[in-house]
Amino acid sequence: LCAQAQVLYDFTAEPGNNELTVKEGETVTITNQVSCSLSACNTVKSLNSTVIVSIYTVLRLTLQANSNGNDPWSAWNADPSAGASNNSASNPDGTQTGRAAAGDSWGVAAQGHPQAYQGPGKNTGLPFSLNSSLLLLFIILSVPGLWNMSCRLFLSTDTSFQISPHHHVSVLPFRFPGFSKSGPELYLLCKQIAKGKDKLPIYMGEVGPVWLYPESQLDCVVADPKKGSKMYGLKSYIEYQITPNTTNRPVNHRYKHFDWLYERLLDKFGSAIPIPSLPDKQVTGRFEEEFIKMRMERLQGWMSRMCRHPVIASSEVFQLFLTYKDEKDWKTGKRKAEKDETVGVMIFTTIEPEAADLDPIEVEQKCEQFNRFTKAMDDGVKEILTVGHEHWKRCTGPLPKEYQRIGKAFQNLSSVFTSSGYQGEETLTDAMTAAGKTYEEIAQLVAEQPKKDLHFLMETNNEYKGLLGCFPDTIGVHKAAIDKVKEGDKLVATNKITPQEKVTMAKRVSTMSYALQAEMNHFHSNRIYDYNRVMQLYLEEQVKFYETIAAKLRQAHSQFTTM
Amino acid sequence: LCAQAQVLYDFTAEPGNNELTVKEGETVTITNQVSCSLSACNTVKSLNSTVIVSIYTVLRLTLQANSNGNDPWSAWNADPSAGASNNSASNPDGTQTGRAAAGDSWGVAAQGHPQAYQGPGKNTGLPFSLNSSLLLLFIILSVPGLWNMSCRLFLSTDTSFQISPHHHVSVLPFRFPGFSKSGPELYLLCKQIAKGKDKLPIYMGEVGPVWLYPESQLDCVVADPKKGSKMYGLKSYIEYQITPNTTNRPVNHRYKHFDWLYERLLDKFGSAIPIPSLPDKQVTGRFEEEFIKMRMERLQGWMSRMCRHPVIASSEVFQLFLTYKDEKDWKTGKRKAEKDETVGVMIFTTIEPEAADLDPIEVEQKCEQFNRFTKAMDDGVKEILTVGHEHWKRCTGPLPKEYQRIGKAFQNLSSVFTSSGYQGEETLTDAMTAAGKTYEEIAQLVAEQPKKDLHFLMETNNEYKGLLGCFPDTIGVHKAAIDKVKEGDKLVATNKITPQEKVTMAKRVSTMSYALQAEMNHFHSNRIYDYNRVMQLYLEEQVKFYETIAAKLRQAHSQFTTM
Repeated sequence: LCAQAQVLYDFTAEPGNNELTVKEGETVTITNQVSCSLSACNTVKSLNSTVIVSIYTVLRLTLQANSNGNDPWSAWNADPSAGASNNSASNPDGTQTGRAAAGDSWGVAAQGHPQAYQGPGKNTGLPFSLNSSLLLLFIILSVPGLWNMSCRLFLSTDTSFQISPHHHVSVLPFRFPGFSKSGPELYLLCKQIAKGKDKLPIYMGEVGPVWLYPESQLDCVVADPKKGSKMYGLKSYIEYQITPNTTNRPVNHRYKHFDWLYERLLDKFGSAIPIPSLPDKQVTGRFEEEFIKMRMERLQGWMSRMCRHPVIASSEVFQLFLTYKDEKDWKTGKRKAEKDETVGVMIFTTIEPEAADLDPIEVEQKCEQFNRFTKAMDDGVKEILTVGHEHWKRCTGPLPKEYQRIGKAFQNLSSVFTSSGYQGEETLTDAMTAAGKTYEEIAQLVAEQPKKDLHFLMETNNEYKGLLGCFPDTIGVHKAAIDKVKEGDKLVATNKITPQEKVTMAKRVSTMSYALQAEMNHFHSNRIYDYNRVMQLYLEEQVKFYETIAAKLRQAHSQFTTM
Repeated sequence: LCAQAQVLYDFTAEPGNNELTVKEGETVTITNQVSCSLSACNTVKSLNSTVIVSIYTVLRLTLQANSNGNDPWSAWNADPSAGASNNSASNPDGTQTGRAAAGDSWGVAAQGHPQAYQGPGKNTGLPFSLNSSLLLLFIILSVPGLWNMSCRLFLSTDTSFQISPHHHVSVLPFRFPGFSKSGPELYLLCKQIAKGKDKLPIYMGEVGPVWLYPESQLDCVVADPKKGSKMYGLKSYIEYQITPNTTNRPVNHRYKHFDWLYERLLDKFGSAIPIPSLPDKQVTGRFEEEFIKMRMERLQGWMSRMCRHPVIASSEVFQLFLTYKDEKDWKTGKRKAEKDETVGVMIFTTIEPEAADLDPIEVEQKCEQFNRFTKAMDDGVKEILTVGHEHWKRCTGPLPKEYQRIGKAFQNLSSVFTSSGYQGEETLTDAMTAAGKTYEEIAQLVAEQPKKDLHFLMETNNEYKGLLGCFPDTIGVHKAAIDKVKEGDKLVATNKITPQEKVTMAKRVSTMSYALQAEMNHFHSNRIYDYNRVMQLYLEEQVKFYETIAAKLRQAHSQFTTM
């Protein structure tokens, strides 16, 4: 009926918890969307009266392909009372199929305007991003009261959900059977700090704490998308060629490899560095040329941003992705990366600032300042996106139509004039026809312009929207650590920690702050570069646009006789 | 309830005609709009089931001033069943007051867009133009069947109504008690043909028959509108100063004098020369600066067009209007003009073509060609007006708002950037603020542009719409004459006319055709001049507009650092 999921691991329910026992390979139906930011648990309130059957389990999401063209997700919210499990058929091969839902992250019904800006999030009407290798954890509880308890239980394991304002849910990989232990106190109180080559030093630059930047900047070119297939052509996919400027040797990757990389980066660096989501996965029409071009452009943008980050660019997993030698090399590297234990907050164990420790009050102030700034910028970016989207629609819709009508009206009048039978008005009628055609050309120019300028302005702001959307989580980790340090005295008094541990915690939160500052400075420097570049590009193309129109009109004007 | 009218002359109903006896000074209520082109009588069909009480009478229209601000005309069409007469109170002083109706000749609700193009016919929601001195003849009949009969009766007296497609009705002055006798046969069969100074010769020019053009072209300047008053300030009006290039001596005229001139010209030349209506009379807000400026501009356009017409420019009545020496001179000239008997079709008695008589078949073909052309041009002109009106609304409404929002969005993001605390991004934030301000300036430019270019394009096309609207009547006179000539043999056979009269009729219809051809050639030459001029002006301003924007954007672009 609704979404089909395939159970990946056995789960035995505990009595009294309204849980559900499921077996590996079994197909279950998920009857209701669970929207919960585990750091807040506020959204639970919106679930109020809905009865949901609880299961703690790990599912591979398999959308039931709906052959009649209807959105299989449409019933998702419409059927809150159905049971959690049935044995209805899933796709035989278990692969993911599905359709973009009618919703659109742009807020406006972009689907009604096929020419409207097709930003990322085209299919974020779906309750989560569907990553093929993603293990989704669904927590479905029948009693809202139980929810908070379970949330708390779950919070302590520090697996986090992230919900964007557009109900786009990206779910962190859930490693079964053990949770990665990475609550902030895990780092604040841990015994060992990484040494040697894994160290991430932070220097004091002109602008404050900065990461160690490499002498030559890594970059790569994502190009040449090719359709590949496996299982004797039963499954087809697009493979992109990625060529780093270091080796200049291309490697091939499918989208799901990018997704795997994203997950590794998020897992390893997410607490310290905002890792922007990949461009959305579009399930239908995956092989349409336009879509492939757009995705490639966005993957390029994402890769370039990752390359520009000194910590990410030099990381083993990122280097593996860009420079693996052969399939075996890749497989080995993959397995190693997946076993990496310096993930979550433990990344801070590798950070080593050169400067003196910071006062916890200063740490807190900086953290709040960053929070304010990123929030404000998020608003500013979204405003540009909203305005830009409307402008896009106008420029590709009513405006060129109007210019076309003006052009047609001039031409029509001109042909009426031609029919007058009056001698010697060819100069006028020719000029009027030319003027009319000029307005038709202007219509064309207007309609095509957004692709030349607004597109990049939108893409850049979109990238920043994604990036800024990661900050609340990153900053959240810091806030949680600050809170722990603030209750240091109480923890010492109640013998939860030793006085020495309290000192260590303050020292470590200072290290975290240096990391956050280095990251913010990295963000600012990139932001200045990016906005300078995109504004220049936008204005340059706008100048060209208006100059072209002026030149065309001047030419049209010259055809009239001066009397 | 609806419109109030004051009876100017006694009228005694004839029994059985459903007429109504009214007395001078009595107030009547007109319950339904009468839309009827007397030359066609087609619109009667639209009156179908409505019951209207008939009155043949002459009324001074006095709109009941509605103090609560509602449109007193709104009930006009809503109450078709009410009686034609009641004694409800008219304005105590009997002067005209009223309000612009909600309807708008532009079709779209321009009142909702105060910035939308306010073309003529701003208040043509009113069923007729309300000229203070106009004697309106209302023919209100109860039985649709009776209508045609009365129309015919009325047609024979040759008083004509003219109805534009927007239901703007301008009513020819009705001279009470005698009708001016001017049916086409009146000329075709008349004994005397004017001689001497009144003659209007037609020469053969390169393009065919042409009027005699004066060596130097008459022109005049309408300027300096001044508020005047009479009756100890009880009545106030606007007086315009008109200075002809011949005497260079200004004369003063109120709108009602222009209207008087229009009536005289229509009366005298209307059968041979299309006399465009004056700019519409606006009853409310007569002294608002904008309105006075607009009316003056249009009176200037109307006067210039009249000056450019060789027949009109040299006519006694037009010369009187432009060059009267004093009030006495004016009064005497007025009285003389009003007594002129060479009006209606009798104008053709003054026309003397130099070329040989035309074959009636050729006459008919030419007449039909002119009819086709003016109809086609009317359509073309209206298309431009429609498109232009929409473009006007877009340019003064949503488009600048959007540019403003783009500008604001850039500035907002810039001020967020300023709050970052990051060093050395003033160049970027200053440039972004400047770019934002540039888009706000562009918004202003866009909003103001229509006044600079579209305005003249609209005004010219509007003038032509008015002019073209006169052709059906002018051509109708010719068609009626041709029809009479075509039945010449039958008329001779039935002894209605003598064989000699048949020959005279053919000769005279040939003279009429020369006049029509001369008029068409005059029209074409003016049309070519006007459209060449207005298109040049439009394109010139459009070029300036786009160049200004390009320059502003280039300036904004230059403020970003090249990296």
